[in-house]
Amino acid sequence: MIETESKENKPRIAVIGSGSWATALIKILTEKSVRIQWYLRKEKDIEFVKKFHHNPRYLSDISLNMRRVKPVNSIAKALKEADTVFLVTPAAFLKDTLAELTPVMLTGKTVVTAIKGMVPGESDIITDWLSKNYHVPAENLAIVAGPCHAEEVALERLSYLTIGANKESTAQNIANLLACRYIKVQTSTDLYGIELAAIMKNIVAVCSGICHGLNNGDNFQAVLISNAIEEIRRFINMAHPAERNVNQSAYLGDLLVTAYSQFSRNRTFGNMIGKGYSVIAAQMEMNMIAEGYYAVQSIYEMNLKLQVQMPILEATYQILYQKANPALTIEKLKEQLS
Amino acid sequence: MIETESKENKPRIAVIGSGSWATALIKILTEKSVRIQWYLRKEKDIEFVKKFHHNPRYLSDISLNMRRVKPVNSIAKALKEADTVFLVTPAAFLKDTLAELTPVMLTGKTVVTAIKGMVPGESDIITDWLSKNYHVPAENLAIVAGPCHAEEVALERLSYLTIGANKESTAQNIANLLACRYIKVQTSTDLYGIELAAIMKNIVAVCSGICHGLNNGDNFQAVLISNAIEEIRRFINMAHPAERNVNQSAYLGDLLVTAYSQFSRNRTFGNMIGKGYSVIAAQMEMNMIAEGYYAVQSIYEMNLKLQVQMPILEATYQILYQKANPALTIEKLKEQLS
Repeated sequence: MIETESKENKPRIAVIGSGSWATALIKILTEKSVRIQWYLRKEKDIEFVKKFHHNPRYLSDISLNMRRVKPVNSIAKALKEADTVFLVTPAAFLKDTLAELTPVMLTGKTVVTAIKGMVPGESDIITDWLSKNYHVPAENLAIVAGPCHAEEVALERLSYLTIGANKESTAQNIANLLACRYIKVQTSTDLYGIELAAIMKNIVAVCSGICHGLNNGDNFQAVLISNAIEEIRRFINMAHPAERNVNQSAYLGDLLVTAYSQFSRNRTFGNMIGKGYSVIAAQMEMNMIAEGYYAVQSIYEMNLKLQVQMPILEATYQILYQKANPALTIEKLKEQLS
Repeated sequence: MIETESKENKPRIAVIGSGSWATALIKILTEKSVRIQWYLRKEKDIEFVKKFHHNPRYLSDISLNMRRVKPVNSIAKALKEADTVFLVTPAAFLKDTLAELTPVMLTGKTVVTAIKGMVPGESDIITDWLSKNYHVPAENLAIVAGPCHAEEVALERLSYLTIGANKESTAQNIANLLACRYIKVQTSTDLYGIELAAIMKNIVAVCSGICHGLNNGDNFQAVLISNAIEEIRRFINMAHPAERNVNQSAYLGDLLVTAYSQFSRNRTFGNMIGKGYSVIAAQMEMNMIAEGYYAVQSIYEMNLKLQVQMPILEATYQILYQKANPALTIEKLKEQLS
């Protein structure tokens, strides 16, 4: 294939985020002829990327195609000419990262969230939060959903992504950007359902970790996950009624890859809680906060209004936020599962 | 609790089978005051069990409650006074094991199958085969379904079983026999659906092993399993139309515990095929035949009539029975998954 790297017709993309998933998405996006402005906060990181063509801290075995990526030190620069903006920061740092962002900077752009989680202290999911705070029109919003460990993208192992958007053509445009030899992409118009499922899978992973920490085995884990996908289905269907099959990859697949991963931070966090660590001690020990920790509170609060039967969420909330005894709480949970 | 071990009112149970799952079921059953006649083929094993209260070969860390278990050397003796018969042999050896069995010996008894798989060379699932060959009335048939690794029963880790029977009261009676501190039991009238799902999960585990052997990762595995539960749903709904939710433990849970198990023989077998072993070489190396190997052929043949869209089954069949190249076949399969 002869590529014409002419500037004019190339998709212009901004990527905000510097972690594993941001790095993996840049690898995927640069399989096509694109122009990426990559916002990196630290000048040192920008210098490193320019010099060595690797992210210094995450997935640093990925060699970046620097003909297609330009690291920049401000969001304004990154967004200036972009048609499409990928937000790929941890939810916990989103507000800080976007401090310099103004609504007008996003005007006319498609905003793709690849953020897993919810903004701490906010009761809105990311797409709603973007609509409210930055006036991004509903038809310009999209989400990238897994199942997809970034580490496997680095290895070019086949992964399937789902792009959710309110507008099918928006989803399709983003899908076209991402499809490549090792990435298959499908589209869905269930933007909100997919986002909620992506958030809730982390809650299940925390709970799964707690149960593992309490010495429950694979038999119980399989029961927990079977109940969890039904709990997710009930909640999403109540929060955003629509025709959907939660056994598709973007929902069940994403849950499986997270809950069965030994490397999931959420599962590790839960495991420590199950072993008897306090929340604070587990967070200090891990030197980071698992996304699922915030998701538990956010979904719990959303459900105060919706009143969906959610025993897995309830048990996890009680353990993390009400100092309930993990062993006793999981024993009670077991009575509610089937 | 003071137990009256009087002979009269105790459930009288025959167990046919000497492997891990039979041993685990005996452990579970003897949590209650029951009389078990346990058929063991080898006189040497009977002596060993009587003397040491352990199965010499499988789950030999389980100490058996010999006040409630009597090893016997013929099926006739085992069945003579039994109300309930548990069949727990590998499907591959069922015909041999039951050689001395006649229909009249099962008259009036509830026959519970805990057999995973299909009788090689037969196109009937076990319960149908029992009906046809031993005239067991439909209302006397039941099945025990997982998710349940026998090894975790030995450790008394909480597991959930589902008893499927055409007649709810039959299922309930068996459920009452099995419920104990570490076993929760639920009932279902979807006898055939549960049995088919239990068979099909082994096919998926073989395919999952093949994909793993071909270096596909966890991202793909999650997609495969999400597609698999839908394939199972489609097939069962066509073969035995009924209201059912395949995300329940007996279907999805059983699939998960098998497909995500590193210890599954079916997955190990598939993995060797994926690595390039021939079927014969893999079977010789493993010194046993994975149940899923027969299941692939049986379900494939059932589906010649039903014509359900089953890409995972098709790919696995082509690889195992038509010498199709595993790598190329899985590449084609990937195009059919979503």
